[in-house]
Amino acid sequence: MRRSISLTAIILAASLAASPAIPQAAPADIEKTFDASISSPEMDGWMKRMAAEPNHVGSKHDKANAEYTLQRFKDWGWDAKIETFKVLYPTPTKVSLDLLGKQRFKATLTEKPVPGDATSSRTKDQLPAYVAFQGDGDVTAPIVYVNYGMPDDYKALQRMGVDVKGKIVIARYGQGWRGLKPQLAQEAGAVGCIIYSDPRDDGYSADDAYPKGAARPAQGFQRGSVAAMPLYPGDPLTPGYGATDDAKRLTREEAPTILKIPVLPVSYGDAQKFLGALEGRVVPANWRGGLPITYHVGGTDAAKAHIVVKSEWSLKPAYNVVATMKGSEFPDQWILRGNHHDGWVFGASDPISGHIAMMAEAKAIGELAKSGWKPKRTLVYLSWDAEEPMLLGSTEWAETHEKELKEKALIYINSDGNGRGFFGAEGSHSLQNWVAKVAADVTDPQTGVSVDKRARAAAMANTGTTDRAKAVAKAAAEGKDLPLDPLGSGSDYSAFLQHLGLAALNVGYGGEGDSGGVYHSAYDTYEHHSKFVDPGFKYAAALAKTSGRMVLRLSETALPVQRYGDFADTVSTYLDEVMKLADGKRETQTAQAKAITADAFKLSDDPTLTSGLPTALMPVPYFNFSPLQNAVVRLKASAKAYDETLKSKGAALPAATKGQLVALAGKTEQALLMEPGLPGGRGWYRNMIYAPGRLTGYGAKTLPGVREAIEDERWDDVDTYSVLTAKALNNYSDKLDEGVKLMGGPAATATPGAAAK
Amino acid sequence: MRRSISLTAIILAASLAASPAIPQAAPADIEKTFDASISSPEMDGWMKRMAAEPNHVGSKHDKANAEYTLQRFKDWGWDAKIETFKVLYPTPTKVSLDLLGKQRFKATLTEKPVPGDATSSRTKDQLPAYVAFQGDGDVTAPIVYVNYGMPDDYKALQRMGVDVKGKIVIARYGQGWRGLKPQLAQEAGAVGCIIYSDPRDDGYSADDAYPKGAARPAQGFQRGSVAAMPLYPGDPLTPGYGATDDAKRLTREEAPTILKIPVLPVSYGDAQKFLGALEGRVVPANWRGGLPITYHVGGTDAAKAHIVVKSEWSLKPAYNVVATMKGSEFPDQWILRGNHHDGWVFGASDPISGHIAMMAEAKAIGELAKSGWKPKRTLVYLSWDAEEPMLLGSTEWAETHEKELKEKALIYINSDGNGRGFFGAEGSHSLQNWVAKVAADVTDPQTGVSVDKRARAAAMANTGTTDRAKAVAKAAAEGKDLPLDPLGSGSDYSAFLQHLGLAALNVGYGGEGDSGGVYHSAYDTYEHHSKFVDPGFKYAAALAKTSGRMVLRLSETALPVQRYGDFADTVSTYLDEVMKLADGKRETQTAQAKAITADAFKLSDDPTLTSGLPTALMPVPYFNFSPLQNAVVRLKASAKAYDETLKSKGAALPAATKGQLVALAGKTEQALLMEPGLPGGRGWYRNMIYAPGRLTGYGAKTLPGVREAIEDERWDDVDTYSVLTAKALNNYSDKLDEGVKLMGGPAATATPGAAAK
Repeated sequence: MRRSISLTAIILAASLAASPAIPQAAPADIEKTFDASISSPEMDGWMKRMAAEPNHVGSKHDKANAEYTLQRFKDWGWDAKIETFKVLYPTPTKVSLDLLGKQRFKATLTEKPVPGDATSSRTKDQLPAYVAFQGDGDVTAPIVYVNYGMPDDYKALQRMGVDVKGKIVIARYGQGWRGLKPQLAQEAGAVGCIIYSDPRDDGYSADDAYPKGAARPAQGFQRGSVAAMPLYPGDPLTPGYGATDDAKRLTREEAPTILKIPVLPVSYGDAQKFLGALEGRVVPANWRGGLPITYHVGGTDAAKAHIVVKSEWSLKPAYNVVATMKGSEFPDQWILRGNHHDGWVFGASDPISGHIAMMAEAKAIGELAKSGWKPKRTLVYLSWDAEEPMLLGSTEWAETHEKELKEKALIYINSDGNGRGFFGAEGSHSLQNWVAKVAADVTDPQTGVSVDKRARAAAMANTGTTDRAKAVAKAAAEGKDLPLDPLGSGSDYSAFLQHLGLAALNVGYGGEGDSGGVYHSAYDTYEHHSKFVDPGFKYAAALAKTSGRMVLRLSETALPVQRYGDFADTVSTYLDEVMKLADGKRETQTAQAKAITADAFKLSDDPTLTSGLPTALMPVPYFNFSPLQNAVVRLKASAKAYDETLKSKGAALPAATKGQLVALAGKTEQALLMEPGLPGGRGWYRNMIYAPGRLTGYGAKTLPGVREAIEDERWDDVDTYSVLTAKALNNYSDKLDEGVKLMGGPAATATPGAAAK
Repeated sequence: MRRSISLTAIILAASLAASPAIPQAAPADIEKTFDASISSPEMDGWMKRMAAEPNHVGSKHDKANAEYTLQRFKDWGWDAKIETFKVLYPTPTKVSLDLLGKQRFKATLTEKPVPGDATSSRTKDQLPAYVAFQGDGDVTAPIVYVNYGMPDDYKALQRMGVDVKGKIVIARYGQGWRGLKPQLAQEAGAVGCIIYSDPRDDGYSADDAYPKGAARPAQGFQRGSVAAMPLYPGDPLTPGYGATDDAKRLTREEAPTILKIPVLPVSYGDAQKFLGALEGRVVPANWRGGLPITYHVGGTDAAKAHIVVKSEWSLKPAYNVVATMKGSEFPDQWILRGNHHDGWVFGASDPISGHIAMMAEAKAIGELAKSGWKPKRTLVYLSWDAEEPMLLGSTEWAETHEKELKEKALIYINSDGNGRGFFGAEGSHSLQNWVAKVAADVTDPQTGVSVDKRARAAAMANTGTTDRAKAVAKAAAEGKDLPLDPLGSGSDYSAFLQHLGLAALNVGYGGEGDSGGVYHSAYDTYEHHSKFVDPGFKYAAALAKTSGRMVLRLSETALPVQRYGDFADTVSTYLDEVMKLADGKRETQTAQAKAITADAFKLSDDPTLTSGLPTALMPVPYFNFSPLQNAVVRLKASAKAYDETLKSKGAALPAATKGQLVALAGKTEQALLMEPGLPGGRGWYRNMIYAPGRLTGYGAKTLPGVREAIEDERWDDVDTYSVLTAKALNNYSDKLDEGVKLMGGPAATATPGAAAK
């Protein structure tokens, strides 16, 4: 569902560091055999087949792909089955969009076949221009251009004196998750929403348009889900529990994640007609796109839109393929590995490019098993359905099996779209060092160095200007592990990490050759993928070798792979950020108050243009961060004690104790869950460290209870969630202390002064 | 010649601060009478007449405008004359540009008349597409797109593995002075240069194109000078001395400021054909313009250009109008006020909009004089010719009269293009507080508050993200004077400030309604100006009232208007910047060296694309900044002693001493001159504090001898110019100490520890 890992994600990748001498399983022979089974031509063939026809939820080919995957898993020696859920999935029955006013135009809403791409001519069964879980409707209103439709854009609109109440907004894709655009428009009183792909962002400005290059052609549009994921993902009718046949369901009207206003995605070919017809103020510089027009904000009767969207709202089957290989020593310690199989149209890059890597792993592991090897722990390979409409397959499965998973699952490893380029990984920071070591053992297909070394090279060569980019470059230069990025949302790890509290990773390659311009369009085809995204399927092989290695090493390890000091240091950084955020907001508010007193906004506005005053910011009080500060001090001490004890005593422990330690490490992340979860109807998100942002969507917010309370001016929640988050961290420290005790190490001593610096 | 003051310049404007109780001339009645004489309709009429026909150097109408101005000055009671210089000024006799290769196209190089703009149809006598002081030539070569053609762009080209040797470059206007683009291309081995105006920068992306809006239409192009101004401005054949009839002249071949390669400016209508034909790598994101194409770097035979430029290189007359009104008390203390009268085509905004304000001042002062008032000091009003080809009129005049000017002139006050918006001022920082006070007494035509208050409002409302913008916003919020920006080059103040060492100011209004899109084109007409740039000529009146007030106050003041603490504080900031620059460069070099050692550039390059390694930076030694540090400590102490003594004892001094003090203040800035001036053939620039940047052109470099030595990796020059610049500052302190002595105040005591904090 998310765009494949981009060049920005590169420098978040993991890396090789000075390895501590913790004894690890050393399955070098196994890995060699495993690697030898990974075949690029075979993956090519799987993609060709699976991406041959539209494979969205409810389509014939989606079901066929599930059955094909099932059969392969079985062939390869796995205990496999299909677990079906009944989920709400609206399919559009009527969509139309017209420009009315001084100029008139009927949007084509059609993705014509592209020369040289046979798949793109397979228009039968394709979904039309459409986003899932918008509200049915038939509305006509003046159009307002809202840039990316993000909160700052609404502030700028206010300064331009433009109100979207009763209007239809047109927003461009990018800068924030798609679903926030209609959500924020709806909250501001808009009656409809058009979302278009500006050529500046992923069209001809970014690269030559398909078929000459990889970028979006003029008629291409981006489908997607607009269900209110910041509330909860999964079936809108069954929040927090599985959408089984007999589940009690909300009515459609009760479901808070379904939008009320109609929304349509359009191509830039269509959008140019709408944007070109707008009058009103010329937009600010950072609102300008790449179309050869002057962008105006609109809002007048000169240009109106007429949107009609009607869907069929029945329940549809979601086919999850679940393949298990039982562990020989620790059958109740599970390693979960997943990738979805449903796409928006043909879904070659998203998701089949990741799915074929997962299949290659399963096949190679099956071959190992056939040769007599058995995994020590239980492996569970998961081919999800209905990820695209909002992680339905994985969420319903995780909710259904919550109890068992919290008892047995050690980790969830995810992948999704994959392509040529740089290794990128996001996830639980206790795994940062381990991920770096895995990446150091995988060879980059283009350069012959390890994928870790290449990611590190990119970080050093492309030093950006953000604090984050600088930190990553610094880590690379100093030979430290490259920091993992935190997980937000946008693929199937969400329920595991944020609802169940499992350790989770999302891994993949990307950043070269592909501008993301066919994302969720009918041009995401085998032809496009094999020409531009991963020629020769070399990075499909690299992904299989990376995530396969992770699965094998976790299966075979005697001792925990975690290094908790990384988690402690990372959380400490997040706390610094949150405290700086409060200080920065206080400064901003003070400056704005002075400007308001000085009448500065009114006096500096151009009196010949429409304008409006900004909303006064709330004064920012000083907060009690001491619970968090103390919890971080303790966490650092406990992590240090754990890591050192594991290093000094781990190898000599009895086998049973080692097994207990691994199980404990699997459960430790669950300590981060805290009831009642996040506020504002977002209680499904229970992880106090990682969450998708309320106003960023896919983008992660760390320490979300505290950070978003500051951002949203909910001052009481700052203190409430400082306490709750500190409690989560203390619970985590308790688990670490339990581990130290199990190993017979000395108890941790937290010295605030020493650890705080 | 420079674009009118933009919104970014606003927040550099001066402001009202807590006024110290230094007694000033209080010519309130005079100013009231003066203001009453300023007539917007009259200025409207002058512009209509002066901008009716092409008025570039050598044109009939340019001469007519000089004579018209002369006659008006005389009518208004001034002692006026025309001083003529004979300057080299090439006029094009043949220009052509063709696209060759897979696609073929002949550039139109023509600015067709625009509907509703009668002036634009007056095509007779217009100069064609052309830039002055390029090299004649007839070349054909593959085209390379070089973005803005600035040094960083050449570094990016190197990383893309593209060489411009033997090629023709196409660069877009912006991000640096025009003349640097062909200069850097020539240095890199290019054989020709095309400069175009990208719609993203001042065309339809910025605003509706003319005539619907103010922005550049598809066929509009920007003329201008490409003489190597960083070496010296003025007539290329008479560096450092006046281009009088009998002056000894360099040959054209000897003149170092004349380019060798042919250069042509083109419209974006024409440029799209050339850029659209390029092959090679897709350009980096910050190289993308606003044309609806994918920008490629080119460099292959697929797209070649054929440029022909031939000029007629005879000497032409430059007609400076010099109008004097003798001072009644201090006839040998001169106040200079200038604005040029030559344009590139009709020159309505540039320069007539500023020229009519200067005329209105001269008329109003003439009327004051007719009523019996006489200025105490001598006023010299200067209507320059030949500013556009590179400040020829003002430079030759300043060089010719160097000796007398250094003896008598107290200040040079400049204006140029002017429009609706915000007050902006740049110049000598000893005048910062005084400029703020003047601006506090001029009323903004649109809001009714002072122009100072409105500029302050803009600074508070539009807080930017640069260090500079933050500092300006902070000053505004704290009620301090808004900082003046330093002067670089681009208008007629250059010779006075940087060659003669006079205090100088450049003042004007702008930032609303105009995107600069007709700058130096045939659409800079009366129609465009009166519709978009300054409707009702209200800001022409505001400028006349601002600069007129400056002239009157300086004429009448009993005591110096300077506050030297502002200069000392500003120089201290510049020293901090320079020291940080060295540290930053050291860090960058260290990081790059590590990346090179780790093979990071090669490993992270996309192996399917052309690429090249960066040039290794030179290790940065530690420098001896102590001469500068000590000089700044002393400067602060001397300035403090001067300002305090003036405040406590100034009013009670004998009239003759007061007059001596003003004369001394006029000479104090000359202490900043230091032989041999800047290195690298730039000795014409002798001011150790302010210079146009070698690689920025118009943009100022402060402490240029030191700062540019660090930037250019000339390590020996860093120490040499630290000593020279410190000496200039010490000479300046000597002058201040001399003033204190004259006032009978206590000598300054510099306490390094105290002042350094």
